[in-house]
This record gives sequence, C-alpha cells and structure tokens, in this order.
Amino acid sequence: MFCWLSRLFRDLSRSTGRTTQPIWGSLSRSLILSSQRSIPELSSFVARTNTCGELRSSHLGQEVTLCGWIQYRRQNIFLVLRDFHGLVQVVIPQDESAASVKKILCEAPVESVVQVSGTVISRPPGQENPKMPTGEIEIKVKTAKLLNSCKKLPFEIKDFVKKTETLRLQYRYLDLRGAQMQYNLRLRSQMVMKMREYLCNLHGFVDIETPTLFKRTPGGAKEFVVPSREPGKFYSLPQSPQQFKQLLMVGGLDRYFQVARCYRDEGSRPDRQPEFTQIDIEMSFVDQTGIQSLIEGLLQYSWPSDKDPVMVPFPSMTFAEALANYGTDKPDTRFGMKIVDISDMFRNTEIGYLQDALSKPQGTIKAICIPEGAKYLKRNDIESIRKFAVDHFNQCSLLGKLRLECADLLEARGVVLRDPALFSFLWVVDFPLFLPKEENPQELESAHHPFTAPHPSDIHLLYTEPQKVRSQHYDLVLNGSEVGGGSIRIHNAELQRYVLAAVLKEDVKLLSHLLQALDYGAPPHGGIALGLDRLMCLVTGAPSIRDVIAFPKSFRGHDLMSNAPDSITPEELKPYHIQVSWPTDSAKKRAR
Amino acid sequence: MFCWLSRLFRDLSRSTGRTTQPIWGSLSRSLILSSQRSIPELSSFVARTNTCGELRSSHLGQEVTLCGWIQYRRQNIFLVLRDFHGLVQVVIPQDESAASVKKILCEAPVESVVQVSGTVISRPPGQENPKMPTGEIEIKVKTAKLLNSCKKLPFEIKDFVKKTETLRLQYRYLDLRGAQMQYNLRLRSQMVMKMREYLCNLHGFVDIETPTLFKRTPGGAKEFVVPSREPGKFYSLPQSPQQFKQLLMVGGLDRYFQVARCYRDEGSRPDRQPEFTQIDIEMSFVDQTGIQSLIEGLLQYSWPSDKDPVMVPFPSMTFAEALANYGTDKPDTRFGMKIVDISDMFRNTEIGYLQDALSKPQGTIKAICIPEGAKYLKRNDIESIRKFAVDHFNQCSLLGKLRLECADLLEARGVVLRDPALFSFLWVVDFPLFLPKEENPQELESAHHPFTAPHPSDIHLLYTEPQKVRSQHYDLVLNGSEVGGGSIRIHNAELQRYVLAAVLKEDVKLLSHLLQALDYGAPPHGGIALGLDRLMCLVTGAPSIRDVIAFPKSFRGHDLMSNAPDSITPEELKPYHIQVSWPTDSAKKRAR
Repeated sequence: MFCWLSRLFRDLSRSTGRTTQPIWGSLSRSLILSSQRSIPELSSFVARTNTCGELRSSHLGQEVTLCGWIQYRRQNIFLVLRDFHGLVQVVIPQDESAASVKKILCEAPVESVVQVSGTVISRPPGQENPKMPTGEIEIKVKTAKLLNSCKKLPFEIKDFVKKTETLRLQYRYLDLRGAQMQYNLRLRSQMVMKMREYLCNLHGFVDIETPTLFKRTPGGAKEFVVPSREPGKFYSLPQSPQQFKQLLMVGGLDRYFQVARCYRDEGSRPDRQPEFTQIDIEMSFVDQTGIQSLIEGLLQYSWPSDKDPVMVPFPSMTFAEALANYGTDKPDTRFGMKIVDISDMFRNTEIGYLQDALSKPQGTIKAICIPEGAKYLKRNDIESIRKFAVDHFNQCSLLGKLRLECADLLEARGVVLRDPALFSFLWVVDFPLFLPKEENPQELESAHHPFTAPHPSDIHLLYTEPQKVRSQHYDLVLNGSEVGGGSIRIHNAELQRYVLAAVLKEDVKLLSHLLQALDYGAPPHGGIALGLDRLMCLVTGAPSIRDVIAFPKSFRGHDLMSNAPDSITPEELKPYHIQVSWPTDSAKKRAR
Repeated sequence: MFCWLSRLFRDLSRSTGRTTQPIWGSLSRSLILSSQRSIPELSSFVARTNTCGELRSSHLGQEVTLCGWIQYRRQNIFLVLRDFHGLVQVVIPQDESAASVKKILCEAPVESVVQVSGTVISRPPGQENPKMPTGEIEIKVKTAKLLNSCKKLPFEIKDFVKKTETLRLQYRYLDLRGAQMQYNLRLRSQMVMKMREYLCNLHGFVDIETPTLFKRTPGGAKEFVVPSREPGKFYSLPQSPQQFKQLLMVGGLDRYFQVARCYRDEGSRPDRQPEFTQIDIEMSFVDQTGIQSLIEGLLQYSWPSDKDPVMVPFPSMTFAEALANYGTDKPDTRFGMKIVDISDMFRNTEIGYLQDALSKPQGTIKAICIPEGAKYLKRNDIESIRKFAVDHFNQCSLLGKLRLECADLLEARGVVLRDPALFSFLWVVDFPLFLPKEENPQELESAHHPFTAPHPSDIHLLYTEPQKVRSQHYDLVLNGSEVGGGSIRIHNAELQRYVLAAVLKEDVKLLSHLLQALDYGAPPHGGIALGLDRLMCLVTGAPSIRDVIAFPKSFRGHDLMSNAPDSITPEELKPYHIQVSWPTDSAKKRAR
C-alpha cells in the first residue's frame, strides 16, 4: 500500500518541470506498477466503480461509473476527468440520441463535478498518449450527471500555475486539489500509519491520549491560556505531553506513544505554527541506547519506499564535537567543509590581529576549506562571505552559519554539495544540563527541561559545579534540521526536588503532583518526541511546513480562509469572566 | 495481537469477584493462549529480557532479567513482582553469600521498583499455584537492584480495594496501575489501531489532522475561547472538525478520517468531558447506505475478539418509529417491552379521564406490557412506577423513561432483561431537519447542524413547510446510547444559503468561506462521527467514560491531580490583552 504513493511522487517529480502535459496525467502510472502489492479498495461504499486514474487496457470492455472534476475540454469532443487518483479521457457522444448527455458535458464549466457511466474502449490507433497512464483507453459515455457546477475560480488547479501563498491559504480547499498537496498529505497519513504499526503492532506500545486542557507549567510563557467558567481560573494548552507521559510511566503503562497535538504561542515566527504535531514516545526501564535503537527502527520501518533506505545505526556526535566541527548543535552532515582549528599554524607568525586573537583566553583561529572554492566562487561571492562574516561578527554560531552560506554559494554556482536524495540522520548527545540565563548569567536554567536526567558520569558535579554537568538529552538531526529530541528523565524525587529548588530556584509547589508521583515507585524512564511537521517537510522536500499541513496558519498565526482569530462580543466573553484590555493606542482611537 | 488483550479481559472479569487471589495473577493466562498469534515484542530496547507475566514452564532454565513493582512479600522468603503483564514469584536467596541481594529484596517497601536477574526454576512439587498463570515456576535470583523506593501509598494497588473516585483522580498515576484501567486503556489503543487499519489500509482513507485553533462558529455557545496576542481577537476550540472535513471534500481529499480531539464547554455535567475524542469520517460521492456499510464494516473489523462478533447489517428504524415504539430516539433494543397504542380498545368505554385524553387532538392511550410484571414486581415497585410517572408527567419522553425504569425494576428483582454480553446496534434515520426553537417555537433551528442535507423526497417542502422536512441524518445507537451520528451534507451553495439565511435566519457572512467553497465544485459528500469515549465505555462495560480516559477531568471540569484550571497572574494575561472581570460578590470580598 505504501508503495503506490511513493512511486506516485517519483512520477510527480519528473513532471513538475514546465510542460504542456498536465501533472495529473502521470500521477497514476505508479498505481499500475503496484497492483501486485496489497492496495486499498478505493471505490468501496461510493457511487463510482473505479477511480479515473486506475483505468488501463486491462479494463477494456468494462462498464464503469466515474466521479470527478472536469479538468479540461477539447472542442466539445473530449473531456478530461480528474479525481485524486489521476486523469482519464472521456469521449463526448455526438449522436442525436445522446443530446442530453452532450449538453451536460459541454456546458459544465471546468472544475464542475460530474458522474459519467460508460464503457472502457481503446483509443483509435495513433491517438494513444504514452505520457498519460490512462493514455491507451478512453470512456465511451452512456449517461452523465452534473453533480455540482463550478463558478469562475480565483486560480487554475494546475501545479505549474504559480499562486502567491496568501491566495493559496485563502482558498486552501482549491489548493488542496493540486497534485503536490495531495501527495504530501497522503504520504504523511501513510508514514504515520507505518509508525503506528511499528510501535503498536510490532513493539507493544500503547496509544494513549493525554489532555490538552491542562495547568500552566512553571515558566510556560509560550502557553496559550483558556479561560474557564470559574472567575480567574485558566486552563493552559501544553507545549507537549511531557508531564503526562512521565505520569503514565509511574502508572505502569510502560510503553506509551501518541501522535500528539501541541501548542506554542510564539507570536509571529516564520515557519512555526501555533499548533503542531509530535510523535511522542516514552518507555520505562530504558536507557539512551534503547530509545535511539527504537527510533532508528521506527524511521527505517516507516520510511517511504521510493527513497533510499535509511541506514542504521545513525552516527552520533557529542554536543562539543558538533560545535567544534560544524559550529552548530544541528550539523548538516550531508557535506564536509568542517571547521578546522589552525591556531598552531599561526602561532609563530607576526600577523598582528591573529596574535591578538590567540593571546586571548581560549583564543583560536579556525578555518573552513571550501573545496574548489577558487574555481567556483566569483569575486562578489567572496565579498558576500566577507559581509556575512562582518554582520555576524562575535556570534559564536558565525562559523556554522558561514559554512552553510558557503554551501549555498557553491550550489548557486552549480556544485552539488547536498544531494537532494540523501537523508543524513545524526544523533547529537552529551548536551549541557544547564545553561547560564541570558538575562542573568549567574543563574542557571535548564538547557532543555527540568526533568532531564544528568549524565551518570557527571552526577557528582551537580552539587559542586552544576554548570559542568552533561545531560542524558539527545537530539535527532536530519540534514541540518532538528527533527526530534528527548532524554532519560529524573525518576528520583529527591534529585528532581534538588534540581528544581536548589539549582533552578523554581517554585516546587507548582509541580508537587509530579514530585509526589516520583515518590510512589516511579520506574526509570525516558523518551523522545519527533516533530512530525518538520520531518514530513524534509521527507517531501517541501519548501515550508505549511505544505505538509492541511489547514496551516499564516506566519502571523492567522487562518486566512476563515479569518481566525476573530473578534467576539463582550456577551460571549461573559461566561468566562474576562474582558478585553484594549491597548492605550487603540483605546484612544476607540474613544474618539 | 488483538486477541491476547481480549482474552485478558475474560480472565479479569472472572477474577473481579472478591477473592484473596490477586487479580494480576490471572491476567496473563490469556497471553500464553495467544502465543500462536502474532504478538508484539514487549521487551525490545529495554533492560528486561522478559515480562513478569509471560514466564511459564517452557522458560525453565532460562536466565532472565525482570523489572517490576513489588506486589507483596511473604516472610522474607518470597516476593511477588508485578509488571503490566502479570505477576511472578521471586525466591529471596537465604545464603550468606547473597546477603546484599536479600537485604535489597527484604527492605524495599511494597510498590518499590526493582530489577532482578536469575534463573527460571520449577516450583517444588506441591507448591504450584494453578490459579496463577506463572504458578508453575519461580525465579531463583542472582542479582537485584533497587531502581526506586516507594513511600507509603494513599491506597493499595489492588482492584478489590475500593477507593473514592476523587482519590482515584487525585492519584491517577497510581490508579492507572490497576488491572482494570490497564485493560481499558490498552483495549482502547488496540481497537483504535484496528479502526485505522480498516480505514487506511483496507479502504484508502487518509488520516488528516485539522486545526483546533479556529474561528467561532455561529451560535457556538459551547466553544472555549482562546485569546490571541491581537487585542480583542480570539480563537475558538471547535466542537468537531465539521467545517474542515467538508472543505477537505471540496479539496478532493475524497476519503478522510481523523481520531479527532474535540472540545465542548458545557460547564458541569456528569459523564461529560470538556475535551473528548471522536472517530471522524467524511467521504465524497457517498450516500447514507454507503456510510452505514462503512461503519458496520469498521465496527465488525475492530470489535474485540473475546466478545460475540458484531452482526451486520445493523437494523434500522425511523425517528418516528423509535419515538412511537420506544419513546426515545435512542432505543435500547436489547429487550422488548415496546410502547403499544391501545387507544382503540378504550374508544368505547366510559372511563372519563380516558375519554378526555382521546378527545384531544392526537390524543392516544399507550401502554407498556411488563412481562411477568405481576410475578416479579412488588407493591412498592408499582408505587415507584406511579411516582415516576407523576414526576415526569407531560414530558413527551415519559413512556420511554418509564420503559427503562421498569427494566431496572425487573432486573433488580433478578430478571435478566439486558444481557451484558449483548451489543445491540441500531441505526435511527429520517430525523426531522428542523425543530421549533424552545424559546420561540415560531422559529426553526437545525435538529443537528445547518449543513445536513434534506431528505430527497421532502426537498420540495423546504420552501413551503420546512418543519415537515426530514433530513439525511442518521444516528448510531448501541444498547440505548448514542455512539455516533452523521449525515449527507448539503453540497449545493444555493441550497445551503437558503437554509442558513431564509430558514435559520443566520448571518451567512460568518460562513462565507464554506459557502464559497460549495460554489467552486464541491462534490456530494457525507460523513459520520463516532464518540470514542462513549463507545469504549460500553465495550469495556465501564461505569463512566472517565474509566476509559487516562487523565479525565472531574464532572466540574477539574484535573484533580494538578489542580487545573488554576489562577494565573495578571502579568501572564497581559500578552493576551485580557483581564479578569470578577463577579460582583467576589469583587466585594476582594475589596474588603
């Protein structure tokens, strides 16, 4: 079942180049290839006998009923009918006796929905279309029904017709008819289904739904609030099921997973969504290696079959190595160009600014070797690199960014550095447990979250030099993007209390239920969450996570189709005992 | 895989009677029975080699590592270890050389978490416990590790120890360790997985996630609001993905499903949850029969194998028949005792109050025949029936309620009317499309929702006598509870506009995006939603839907474990431009 969709994409990719051949024409070739495989029944329970895209010479002579959208019409003789599965040519009958059928098929505007019944016949010799999977046959229509007529559309349903993203989001229901969106959403569904099979059927995980109306977590500044009918009392939409999944482990549920809806209010940020989905996993009696093996198996099992298979185990790198060699904690390991420490080469030179740099504490000189840079990079490329460096001067991530910038420049000049077919997974491990707070570097905050367990070798440092403690956190990186992260958790109540109260200076009362749970026989446990939207974005090669979500919000958090969020009346707010505090500016405007 | 859990319940049900044998002892018998079937790997990736509950004579001589909770200890000689899978007896070593192991196993409090390694050995002859699935073997321990110590618990982890629900919800993570909750949540997970297999793998449905941060729907008085960072602008948490699933059909997604989280703010209502889950389905080119066949197949496929198989097709009854024969639109068809119209018998009598009744418009005399009522019902039963009738006088649902009341009375007297093993599904169809508004019976409101299509035979009445129009809505009823409902939708924009504007007097602007979508080639479509919590409640025989939800809210909508909803600071509300309007009473108190 998985196969037919993956093949579909290969055909799709081939046909996305500008061509007069409609994309839909080649979409269903894959389907015939996979008829040997188990394929879902796509026409059960409905008015059609077949999908448009599945018909072939093997169907010749069959009486079929098809339902679909009118893709286009040629000289009132042919009609091309489309459904999600592909295109098929329908012959409009020309004889008097079929005048009513002709009228329906000739008068219905493009994108109207029709049902036709007729016979699958061969195309006349010479009229076959080898580029179209259904190109050997056509439908000789007997009856036709106009199911719904279509008004003039704001844009054509053809992938090569470029629309602005605003228009696409405003008419999302039309945008979804395009082949690429159909592919993205169907692949997402199937990949998640495979993940479920792996977790549930192969490894005994239990799919458990956890609440989204919860209590505000300490420091949860990015949590949406939901007023309740009790004055002054609010629920909070959690950023992850973190507390619940740990409590499930205490409850002996042992192997939990959930395709979990999560919420994060970050205001306007490009390529972020206020609600997003993660594959959320937690296990008892597991260590870091166990979680990593599980995830490697999960991705291998669910990986689309038209892509190169995922090789396991994934390579692993410490946080320190990642920073040293790639200048980032999420290195893109599809290409080299590592950062090299060349301090020693320059230690004995007399170049003043280099000596200056080396004389500072931890002063180093580092370089990136751009392979054949002299050959490919032009004068203005070098200039742009120089400018980039100046703009990012004194940011510790400069070299990492510069490395990516150079890769972009090389690729713009035609060098293939990052093979689009290559999926390069990487574990990054041994993160610091705490980081100095940005606003007050004397205080520490969790590098990830306060439930992360310290690295066993560093546990003694917790009480003396907590800033030096490494954690049992691990990130999963794919092609330079973080696609997952998790950790072994603290299961000892005393240790958790110490971290919260003594190190992080948090109010432990807000987490008293979790601390109490740890006291009542909590097993050692750990887990991970994969960012599904980001993962699907990388797998499909989509330019934005909005392209793998059916109804995404704009980068300002708006639903452009329905105009959410929207004003509501004070009357509607009354049961929640809240009122709007208009900002001074607007208040003034309203007062005028 | 499905089988082992179902069997588990049969054993569980047997053992829920008061017994000194711990329930967990019999839980895993089922597992050995099903080892012929494909069973998930339950010990992959973790520290154990086996689960406690799976060990049998066939494991004799094997070196195993087990992780679990100390269920109880006998005279410092035996220890019973529990995991989610069952119980196993561990022999505490008594020789000097194993003093440290003995110390760990003897000193750890009950419900502490330990890891033991040792050999599976036969119990000495005569010491086998045939009531315990692992009763032929025990573990000769070599090493032991205390993974976490347990403090004194608020209640014992034994199902026969009765706790108040408040206590259970407050310590939900302990309550989850009980066999019944483990069974309920695991069965739920597996049944949903089977549904997914049926929809996705067998019938080509696409699992699509739709947003929960949406726009307020017209008349959506039960929708939670979520303030955004734009002053006065609010999202709304939708009661169902209704609009989105229809838009997906317009988008050509054709066969959609989602295990959808939905929200409904009804204040305090027993056995309702502010968030709940529905199996949400929509199809294009389908009629009522198609949806019904799909659902019958779905339930048949996903039904637990230890229960009597679901027989299809389900019987069907019109709304009018249901009301006439059962006095309700969700009849419990497990038993007869139908309501019978006996007006004709009394038409010629001279009993005054009966003649009065018959002389009124549509006046009828109806009766319920209680089988062997005279034999089983006592004087005070009759009195309570009389009182019930008086209390509910003039409610049209009186006879339906009276029928259930009589069934309760008969069953209290030992008559088995409603076989607990019987699952009686029923379709109720041909509902009215509109109902008179309660507050103003001159106006009409939708009986279900405004997108429901009228019955094809009644469509002409829409413009003349809309109150007489039947709809294409269908409800699925199980044992007298509504477990699902759906309809064929309006796909014609003109018709939808007419219903919204002319019949319902709604502001069509709020739904302009949907109306516009219908204009752009919307296919005919329909769907259904099954209430998963209610369905699982009936399948498991749980007394409340709270017993099939991992972390339910109390009937006041509180999370008793974490104390949500909770107060938050005005500072935290600032980004959302809202403030609390304290009700006058509290305001006064605060002012003091």
